[in-house]
Parts: sequence; structure tokens; C-alpha cells
Amino acid sequence: MDVTKSNFQTVLEALDDELKNASFVSIDTEFTGLSSTEGRNSKLSSLDTPPERYKKVLNGTSQFVIIQFGLSIFRFDNSISKYVNKTYNFYIFPNTSTLPGLCDTKFLSQASSLGFLASQGFDFNKLIKEGIPYLNLVDEEKLKVILEKKSKLLHLRSDASSTQVSELPADQKGFLNNITSKVETFLQNEENEEKSNAALELHCSTIQNELIFSHVKYRYPKLLFEISKKTSSGCTVIVKKTGIQNSKTEPSGTDNNVSEMEKFEDNVGFSRVIRKITDSGKLVVGHNMLLDLCHILGQFCAPLPEDYHDFKGMVNTFFPRFIDTKVMATTKPFRDILQNSALERLLSSLLAAPFRSIEIVPATGFPSYTDNFKNHEAGYDAFITGRCFLAMANYLEDISSSQSKTTAVHESSFITPFYQKIFMMMVPDIPYMTISGPDLEPSREHVFHVTFPSEWKLQDIFHLFSVHGTVRVDWTGDTSAFVTLHRKENSPFVLRAMAESKLPVGCSVISYKHYLDRKSQNATLSAEVPDLSSRKRLSSAVECNSCDFPSPKKIRKDVKNVKLNKEQFVVSADWD
Amino acid sequence: MDVTKSNFQTVLEALDDELKNASFVSIDTEFTGLSSTEGRNSKLSSLDTPPERYKKVLNGTSQFVIIQFGLSIFRFDNSISKYVNKTYNFYIFPNTSTLPGLCDTKFLSQASSLGFLASQGFDFNKLIKEGIPYLNLVDEEKLKVILEKKSKLLHLRSDASSTQVSELPADQKGFLNNITSKVETFLQNEENEEKSNAALELHCSTIQNELIFSHVKYRYPKLLFEISKKTSSGCTVIVKKTGIQNSKTEPSGTDNNVSEMEKFEDNVGFSRVIRKITDSGKLVVGHNMLLDLCHILGQFCAPLPEDYHDFKGMVNTFFPRFIDTKVMATTKPFRDILQNSALERLLSSLLAAPFRSIEIVPATGFPSYTDNFKNHEAGYDAFITGRCFLAMANYLEDISSSQSKTTAVHESSFITPFYQKIFMMMVPDIPYMTISGPDLEPSREHVFHVTFPSEWKLQDIFHLFSVHGTVRVDWTGDTSAFVTLHRKENSPFVLRAMAESKLPVGCSVISYKHYLDRKSQNATLSAEVPDLSSRKRLSSAVECNSCDFPSPKKIRKDVKNVKLNKEQFVVSADWD
Repeated sequence: MDVTKSNFQTVLEALDDELKNASFVSIDTEFTGLSSTEGRNSKLSSLDTPPERYKKVLNGTSQFVIIQFGLSIFRFDNSISKYVNKTYNFYIFPNTSTLPGLCDTKFLSQASSLGFLASQGFDFNKLIKEGIPYLNLVDEEKLKVILEKKSKLLHLRSDASSTQVSELPADQKGFLNNITSKVETFLQNEENEEKSNAALELHCSTIQNELIFSHVKYRYPKLLFEISKKTSSGCTVIVKKTGIQNSKTEPSGTDNNVSEMEKFEDNVGFSRVIRKITDSGKLVVGHNMLLDLCHILGQFCAPLPEDYHDFKGMVNTFFPRFIDTKVMATTKPFRDILQNSALERLLSSLLAAPFRSIEIVPATGFPSYTDNFKNHEAGYDAFITGRCFLAMANYLEDISSSQSKTTAVHESSFITPFYQKIFMMMVPDIPYMTISGPDLEPSREHVFHVTFPSEWKLQDIFHLFSVHGTVRVDWTGDTSAFVTLHRKENSPFVLRAMAESKLPVGCSVISYKHYLDRKSQNATLSAEVPDLSSRKRLSSAVECNSCDFPSPKKIRKDVKNVKLNKEQFVVSADWD
Repeated sequence: MDVTKSNFQTVLEALDDELKNASFVSIDTEFTGLSSTEGRNSKLSSLDTPPERYKKVLNGTSQFVIIQFGLSIFRFDNSISKYVNKTYNFYIFPNTSTLPGLCDTKFLSQASSLGFLASQGFDFNKLIKEGIPYLNLVDEEKLKVILEKKSKLLHLRSDASSTQVSELPADQKGFLNNITSKVETFLQNEENEEKSNAALELHCSTIQNELIFSHVKYRYPKLLFEISKKTSSGCTVIVKKTGIQNSKTEPSGTDNNVSEMEKFEDNVGFSRVIRKITDSGKLVVGHNMLLDLCHILGQFCAPLPEDYHDFKGMVNTFFPRFIDTKVMATTKPFRDILQNSALERLLSSLLAAPFRSIEIVPATGFPSYTDNFKNHEAGYDAFITGRCFLAMANYLEDISSSQSKTTAVHESSFITPFYQKIFMMMVPDIPYMTISGPDLEPSREHVFHVTFPSEWKLQDIFHLFSVHGTVRVDWTGDTSAFVTLHRKENSPFVLRAMAESKLPVGCSVISYKHYLDRKSQNATLSAEVPDLSSRKRLSSAVECNSCDFPSPKKIRKDVKNVKLNKEQFVVSADWD
């Protein structure tokens, strides 16, 4: 079922019950792009460690956004011994209107990604016009603080029988005096000249805009105050003559306030779905989840931490129980049976022997996806991820016992080894990140880090290692590369042999361990330099070294205590 | 007339003649966003100098892209003494397919801008599916070099009766040997095991992909070679058994080559329209053109230079004769007659007295825009920009002579003072950039730069200057601002008065001139530090200090001489 702004509220209201009754949920997302940088620093390598891979994903993808989210809810119905499914396909787009305190989201797109989605029938007009907005916890709290501040100002105004300038924030008095004198001058000038289309432009911040409406406008019933050119940092108020000599002023205060709180709820929008999933504590299943998780957390929860260990904490906080079907499909026993772990091909393998078919029935009112292929629609992909999960979980039960089971396989104890592991593409010896504990640390004694003159080609490296057999080369720069021996047994001899034969000028070879030590030394050094990146760190959220990520409650509280940007309350630019 | 991929070629072919016969053309563009940064450094100020403004635009907008381009061609028909109009509305979208050497464009969007365009009926599905691609001169030449290199490789192959490994680029031999041995192993293994769905994945760069197809594939008629997961930096080639024991190999070489040269032309796409406009030498009219010009030049011509003077040179090279109707509307005599220079409002003013109506007839086959309002469609906005230009040019003729003219007003000598000037928003004393010569340098003796403690509020600054009358404050940071006296006659006394009365601790006041001097000193200092920004400079293009920007021919030549990235030809990543 497609979900857009128009039916979102209805879907959201039913979600608590649906999640409560769910056996598990599966998810999938579609983004505006996959990889934003092309340099070697963000290129995936088969020797990436989990922290290195996380850093690459963080730097390379954080500006793209999720534009579609598939949520497939599976409920095992004991009475029919079948899974009943409800799949939602949410269209998600950042807030396009301007509300004081809401930033105007900028995001990156990759032409090929949008082209691909368009070729699959993705409706971009629907997305932009009808997409559901969202706010992460930090922005949600910031907005709440600003709305509360604003509401205070509005109350000041509605309590006032005359201009209570003495009740105003001290730093705004000068602004209001200035504006009032401009409006007076305008009124007098224009009345003399009798121009009907004369207008006065007042540039101000969002808070000042409110002040104009709450403290200035009502004194001039002959004038029309209109907002034009609204941006995130402020707006221009246009003052014109109404033509009507005694027009009524608009009702004000509490009404405005109520509608703004409604707008606020609307703007938290899709993020509330993620909060409900977290709160439900239900198993969440995804396929090749690293990008999905990073985007979901960063876009709907809180800014992603720089540190990989804090990322682990964050995942555990928001997704305390998840399974990545790509991890299942690429580890034993499945990796020996399945040829390909790409989602569509995986499904087609799992529909044939030795896998047992599992009947899934769509809930009333929900279309069946079983014969209705919509590859690369987030809802469809979430659904087939759930199907793949069930098929594999079932198989694990089957091979462990001679009896065929008819109970709910999602409760099987055989799936627990797969909890909290995220598939890591292209790294044969560390195939997944272990989110619930320490990562795998395979021996890389057959890997060497080589630096060489810039004119070197692949052949020169092959030549350097020729006595040790064939090697694989992973470039790390124009003058450096990792070299992996195919014959691991030759590893102990390499460094000695290199030392004995004279290395070419400008060339050095060190062990992988030595390379890592150097790298961590450099990291310590550079950590002493102030962080120049624009990524904002949550005060306490990312400081912890353990996996204890602050709870959503704590994140909200932290934001409340953060001093807001001066500019949001202080007069800023051009008054002319 | 909407122009997309499907009718672009036809439109392009007719364009030379149409431009040749044109009296002038008007243009307009729609972007994916307006302002990408929110910090003070990119905030427009009423005291910006032209170089400062250019820098802000350059830093704040360069990641957005033009998605619609309106070109309105006006031809004065002497036989009917009327202008005949053809308006084209081009949908423009970066290349979404992958061609070796073409980068996969990433661009920024601003949610509110897309939302606004969607609300005006912009069709994003049409844009992404049918948008015309483009290449600037630099990327065009790079692509050409790569295709030529590739074509050489293909010829090597088609000439060869057997594998002429000795004719290969030396650095690719190792790669090919490795691939060949993998394919051999695969063939032997799988034949033994008799698995029908077995597949071998080969990761390679785009050039290597070609090498596989030109040097390996034809040796294995029993195997199927398919490309999957194509990205800008490379792809994965999947090798499978065909099932057919002696399948024919595909025809190769020259045919492929021809179709790639066609694809190349397609990819230069819309940029050819801009080149034709430049070559025509016709007057180009736009409205509030700074963003339009920056985007047009950067997207379709060459990367924008860092230096403002080089930018002037670049504009003069590609748009040797242009007029900004916003400059006309805001200078004498129009600024005294027109209340608002925003395009729609400007048009409605120009349709009434004292302006004379000018009849414009649509050319055969072109719909009339005169009664068909499509505000914020690039084509429509280009058309009404042309209408506004004609109305104002006509008026200049009218007031200069008692006789009403019936000849073509675009030839009027009264418009020449407006040539090569770009409107500069919000700067009252420098209302435009002068592209053909030195910029205006108004006296700013009544402006002072003040630094103060961070706890200062607006009131404190007002207080500091209170004896000199009212002031305007433009914040330049949390602890600094420009202060402009409303009473210019008090300017000479400020610094002396400040020196005589004791300034508060942490506070300093300097003249605007002094501030500029300091700034240029700092700029000189920081220019000695290597440039860390990612923006690439054209080797010779931006080095010149005069307004001599290299010709398109020179730009192409420079690119040819640039050494291409090693990575594009050298084996790069993971072979496993």
C-alpha cells in the first residue's frame, strides 16, 4: 500500500496495534544516490576493517536521502498456520514549506540513481508533492524549543492591551522601534503621494517576523502586512495599503498556536514510524543493511556519530534486534547452496528445492506482492526480504530435525547467531560488522603495505613479489598499495627476503600490522587538531567509548540544554 | 514548445537558421536550489562588493543544477512590423547512463525549490526520464580523449588474428593474464561440476571491461559475458555458460565505435545550444541574470573561475552582448516609474501606460504565451523577459522623440548603456556588476567596521553610535558588524569621537577603507597557502588577471594537454 501525506495519519494510527501483533517486520529503503565521492579515500577495499568501512560510508553517503521506505509487517496466524502480511510503501520527502526553526533541507542526488528509479517506474512527482516529511530527534527538539519561545511571545502579545515593549526580549526593542518608525514614515509619505501600489519591504529574522505581526501590525489596520521571500533564516515582510480604511485585524494568538503545533506533528512525520518500530522491540529484517541503517539513523533518529563504536551503540539503541539476510545468505550453511546473494536472485533460489515454500497471505485490503513483481520499489523489496528470511529460517529448522515444522519459524533459536550483524561487501575475511560485540579480527599476515615511486605500474609490483608467487594488488594511492599473497605459506619469508635483496629506490614494504599501528598513531596525532568538519557531534552522544548510546529521551534532553544560535533571536541583516 | 530527448535533435538542427534570423533572444533557467550554505559567509549583504558577491554565489550555488532552460527567439518581421516569436522550453538532466569516461553527476537539491516547482506543475518524471544531457567543454574533451584511446584499443583487436598481447598497453598485460587464468579455471571447474547456474564475477575498471570484451571474450564462445553493476569507476563482468556449445561471437569493432560516437554527440547534448547562442553573436536578454549566468557557464561551458575578474572574462567570451532587464528596471528612467522589478509584476506594470503595447505573434506551430500564463516555467519566463525588454526599449525610444517608432526597437542606440551589466541584489550603492569594464566604486565613508565582545546586542551598538544619529547594522559575525550612518554628514567625526571617548573593553571601530585594506592583506597571505578546496582550476583559464578569458578552442586544447588520471587506465581494485 502506497503511503503519502494524504493517508499517512490513518496508517500511523493503526501502526501501534499492527506492530504489537507482528511476528517480525522487514524493511527496505530507496535513496537519491549511493556514493558521493570518487576519490580513493572512499572507495571500498577488500581489506577494509569495520571502522574504515563505516567511515567511508559516513563520508560518502551522508548527503543522500531516503525517498522511499518499505515496511512489511508479518504476523503468524496460528489459526491458519500461515503468515499474514501488510506491506506499506512510504514516499518520503523533506519538508518543503517553511516553518520558523525548520531548516530548508538540501540533499545530494546521483543522476544514475534517479535515472534508474525512474526507469523502474518511481513517481517523482508524487514524491515531491505528496512525500511525507520527517525530523530527526535533534531537529524535532530544536523546533519545539523555538515554537515554545514563539508561543511565549504570542502570549505576551495577546495579554497586552497596549504595546508592552517592556515585556519584550531586551535585544528586540531596538528592532521594533526601528520598524515602527519606518512604518510611520511609509504611512505618511505614501498618503501624501497617493500611490496605490506603494510598498515597504522589511527584512527580518523569523522571530522578528512574529514580532512585527504581534506588536506592530495591529496598530495599523489601514495597512496590509504580507510575508514574502521566506527562507530558513528569515523573511521579508511587505507592507502595503489595504485600500480599505478600517479593515478588521485578524484573530490571533492561541488559534495560530494550535495550528502550528499540528504543523509540528506533521513535520515530525515519518520519523514517528521509526520510533514506533524501535519501541515495539520487534525483530527487524533487512537485506545488505549498512546503507539502510546509516540513512535511517541519520535521517530519522540523530546525526550519525564519527566514531564506529558509537555507531554500534546507536544501532543497538534504535534497532535492538535485527537480522541482515545477506549475512545469512553468505554464511554457512547457505553460502554453499546459494550462488548469488543479490536480493532478486536470492529469492528465486529460495523458491526452489531444497527450500520449502512458505505461504504468505496478504491481509484484507492489501494487494498481494507474491505474483506482482515490483523490483526496486521499497515496499516490494521489504516484502521479499521477509520472504527470503522465512525461507532460510525454515531451512535451518528443517536440517536440524527430521520433522517438518508448522509453527512460526521467526521464533526459531537457529536464527539467533545472525542477530546484530551487518553485511560488509567485498571483504572476504570480515564478511560482517558485529554490532553487539567485538568484530572479527582475521590474520592478515599475508598482506603487506607497499610504497613505491609514482611511475610504477602493476607489473612492477608483480615483479617485486614474483619470488613469492602471485599476488593481489589493492591500490591505496598513486604511490602505495596493499599486496596480498595468494600463497599464504610464503608470508613469513617476505620481509626478510625484501631486506636481503636491495629494494628499488623509493620503495618500502611493511607488514599489515605495522601499517595499522602507523595509521592509529597518525589518527591519535590528528585527533589533537580541532575538528574542522562540518558534521555536528551531539554533545554527550558521541563522547562515550563504550557501546552505550544515549536513549532517545537523553538525546532530546541534551538538545534542550544546548544554547541556541544567537542569530535565531537577534536582529541580523538589512533593514533597508 | 517543450523540448526533451525525443525531439531535441530536430530542434537543434533548425536552431542555426533561427538564430541567424533572430533579432535577439531571451533566456531563463530553473534550478534545483538557490542557496546551499546558511553561514554568514554566504549570506548576501547590502555592502557586498562585486567580487565578494561573486564569491558568495560561487560557493553557495555551484552544486545546484539547471533543470529547465527557456530560450525565446524574437525575430522582427519587417513585412508585418511585428516580432515573431519561437519559445523553447528545454528539460535538462545530467546523463543517467554510464559511458566510459563520463562521470556520474551528483547534484544538490533544495527541498523548498523542488516543492515550489512541483506546485507550479513542473514534471519531474519527464525531467528524469526525458531530460537532455549536457557536458561542459572540459568534460567533452576528456570524454573524446578517452573514446579515442578506446577506439585505438578496439582497432588493435579487430586487426588481430590472435591475441596480440604484445600490442596492449604495458600496464594491462598483468590484468589480462590474470583474467584469462581465472576464466580458464572457471571453465574447467564448472564443466566438471555441471552446475548450470555457476557464474564468475570479474571486477574491473571501465577500460579493463573493454579489454575483457576485446581480448578475452572471443576466445570463449561457450561462455556468456555480461556487464552488471556498472558505475562510473568500473563494473563487474559476469561470466556464465551459454548452454549453447558453439554460439557465434558478436560482430565487433567499428560498429561499436560508430554507435559510441553517436552516444558521445548525444551526451554533449544541450551544451550545443549554448555554443550556438554564443556563436550567433546575438543579443541575449535575461532577468536578474547572476545565478542564470553562473549556472549556464559552469554547467555547459567550463568550471567557473575562482577569481571575479576571470569570471568577467568568461562572461564576455560566452555572452559578448547581453542585457539584464532587472538592471534596466531599477535604473533611471524606469526606477522612478516602476514600483517592483520582480518579473511578473514588472510585466504587469509594462502592460499599462505610459508603456506602449508591442504586438508579438507566435511563429507557426508555436503556442502563444501571451494569454497563457505559465509563471516559473523557464520558457514562459524567458518569453516575458523578452516582452519586458521590448516594452522598456520602446519606451526609451518614445521619450527621446516625439514620433512613435515602428522599426525594430532592439536596434535602438538607447539600450547600449545597459549592455554587459548584471543586477546585484540588495546593494543600493552598487546596483550592478559591470562586466565590460571596472565596477562602480561608491564612497563608503559613512560605513564603519566594528568588533565587540560576544555578549553585545544590537542595543549596545546603537548606544555606541548614539551621538552620531541612527545607524544600520549588518552583522558580519558574532563579534563584528558593519555600521552605516544614516546621516552621512556625521562621518568625518566618528573615528575622532571614538578615539576621544574611551571605547568599551574588547571593542574597536575602523573605517570601511581600513577594513578593506586589512581584508586584502589577509587574502594575499592566505593565497600563499595551497588551495585545499576541491574546485578544480583550468590550468591557464584562471591564471590571467585581465579580462581575457580563453576561447572555447583554447579550453579544448588545454584539456587535451592535461595528463589524464592514472586510475582511468591502470588496474585498480579487487579481482576476487
